[in-house]
Amino acid sequence: MTPTPEQSLRDVVDAVVPRDAAAMSEARARQAQLTKPAGALGVLEEMSVALCGVQRTCPPRPLRSPVVAVFAGDHGVHAQGVSPWPQEVTASMVANFRAGGAAVNVLARQAGAAVVVVDMGVACDLEPGPDLLDHKIRAGTSDLAVEPAMTRQEALAGLLAGVSVADRLVDRGHDVLLTGDMGIANTTPSAALISALTGADPAAVTGRGTGVDDAVLARKVDVVASALTSRPVTGDPVDTLASLGGFEHAGIAGLLLGAARRRVPVVLDGVIAGAAALVARALAPEVIDYCLAGHRSVEPGHAVALAALGLRPLVDLDLRLGEGTGALLALPLVQAAGATLREMATFDSAGVARKETPDVR
Amino acid sequence: MTPTPEQSLRDVVDAVVPRDAAAMSEARARQAQLTKPAGALGVLEEMSVALCGVQRTCPPRPLRSPVVAVFAGDHGVHAQGVSPWPQEVTASMVANFRAGGAAVNVLARQAGAAVVVVDMGVACDLEPGPDLLDHKIRAGTSDLAVEPAMTRQEALAGLLAGVSVADRLVDRGHDVLLTGDMGIANTTPSAALISALTGADPAAVTGRGTGVDDAVLARKVDVVASALTSRPVTGDPVDTLASLGGFEHAGIAGLLLGAARRRVPVVLDGVIAGAAALVARALAPEVIDYCLAGHRSVEPGHAVALAALGLRPLVDLDLRLGEGTGALLALPLVQAAGATLREMATFDSAGVARKETPDVR
Repeated sequence: MTPTPEQSLRDVVDAVVPRDAAAMSEARARQAQLTKPAGALGVLEEMSVALCGVQRTCPPRPLRSPVVAVFAGDHGVHAQGVSPWPQEVTASMVANFRAGGAAVNVLARQAGAAVVVVDMGVACDLEPGPDLLDHKIRAGTSDLAVEPAMTRQEALAGLLAGVSVADRLVDRGHDVLLTGDMGIANTTPSAALISALTGADPAAVTGRGTGVDDAVLARKVDVVASALTSRPVTGDPVDTLASLGGFEHAGIAGLLLGAARRRVPVVLDGVIAGAAALVARALAPEVIDYCLAGHRSVEPGHAVALAALGLRPLVDLDLRLGEGTGALLALPLVQAAGATLREMATFDSAGVARKETPDVR
Repeated sequence: MTPTPEQSLRDVVDAVVPRDAAAMSEARARQAQLTKPAGALGVLEEMSVALCGVQRTCPPRPLRSPVVAVFAGDHGVHAQGVSPWPQEVTASMVANFRAGGAAVNVLARQAGAAVVVVDMGVACDLEPGPDLLDHKIRAGTSDLAVEPAMTRQEALAGLLAGVSVADRLVDRGHDVLLTGDMGIANTTPSAALISALTGADPAAVTGRGTGVDDAVLARKVDVVASALTSRPVTGDPVDTLASLGGFEHAGIAGLLLGAARRRVPVVLDGVIAGAAALVARALAPEVIDYCLAGHRSVEPGHAVALAALGLRPLVDLDLRLGEGTGALLALPLVQAAGATLREMATFDSAGVARKETPDVR
């Protein structure tokens, strides 16, 4: 008998286990032998230990086959005038991704990463092709300002679509996944999810997105606040996602769960990923063990989400583009962290004297 | 007639000109056409404009042949007990660099960068080889706690050695230079230079280096403060360098001047490079136009130096290793900045609609 979507999601959640403590202990011991002062590689050292825990081996395997999955969807809340961009730009940018001309493509080429686009719910039909994964739930969410953005069944379908994307990419040999997103107006549902899942005030997590003026910003805050008032948050993360989220949030949250189940690290992009990660963590707390925060965007809700997730961003360069650009910029840092633990000489192998103890000096 | 070292340095300084304003204007205009909201790539956009100014062309050429030059030297001030590491570690680590086992080697391999070691004044003789540039001024500086670290002639020789390293590396085809350093005790002369050249209090710019306890930190601060008291800073940056610096500071400052003269960008590493950049800027203010700050180290003087230089660090990951590691971690970000300006589609070429004006919406 085919399991129900509810059961399928429970199965994925149950398969997410903590990182391997033994591999992490081994990694810490190895770090202490490397030819550098203890702690001198800062965040890279912690990251190398985390990678060992994720991969359950020390030293960590190289991350040779990265892929950024760009989840695309449209948003009913666009009708509220929360973005200065026409909704059609979502589909135009998907075409740009597929033609290789967008920032995500340029940065992926630089980083040696593949790009796949996932249609989670773009408002128009997209040309099929091997570079597009079709998981369209619906041609755009409903307007969260007036009703739940999606049904519970749609939210479940979106989550499971993300899980299947993770499985497909890992099956293709990708050993690190990066999140990306495209969806005009999607900072509004992101702010709503972050407010709902962290308790932060809507005004503190709602930002200017791709560049809105004060009047539009005020409208965005109103939309988020009144959605949260009219449909109070329950303790069920799937219902919260359905009420306030976007199809790309569902897909990314599912990707995180699927990657964690497969024990593959994920580099998160910006505020959309941060909101999705809060949903995923509410379903399976250990999922965050498998996540690295690529960057911190200027969107204020992102910092709130990262703090709630306990993740430190690797890059902080005032980006606010999405697409996966921040994750791609961080990827070389993640690869470098693993490489130092794998390749550096030890004090003994290099014949380097250790730091003198205070008594000796 | 061979020019004197004073004249040679003046010639280099005079050849450092500002970035090309026309190329930078062209870059800004091009940025505005790319398929993304204006400003959405944050610091990367400014960096792409700077690269055009440095290279005097738009779009910028790819940075395909990076090299990190690791300037190594020893320090008489080690006798004051300012470091818990034996002085011989400088030479051991140089051997480690040459064997490919240090952090700088691992990160250089990740980034596709070459590594050259420059002997500016290691305390013992080093094995010659094509991987070592011999510019040894002396087998370690004098103890800056009791006398000038070097003579003015030595400081000039060190600066000109750095210039010649830049010329050699650019002549070899390297199109971006990264600074690196190795010298046990070299955070002490760095703090002294930063205090002298920014006016900051010695206690505010002296840190724990590779990991010293409170007692040693207090001794470092005393050493820096009393050197500055006993030999007051004059307005002459060469004299300041001679009084307080290390041979690796001289070499790096010279490298920056030489690279600027050759119109090649330099990615600065940590606090040693920050101190050296202050020396170089005091000689030729426009040299900073050619510098990018790779990272911010935890050494407190580094943040002070970066603020004085007006440089924003690209990476901030609690590193305190030196060697060039912070510069290497930032290199992919610099390459990415240029690539976006060079390779991204424009709104017109991709057929993407622009942001609506407020009147239209």
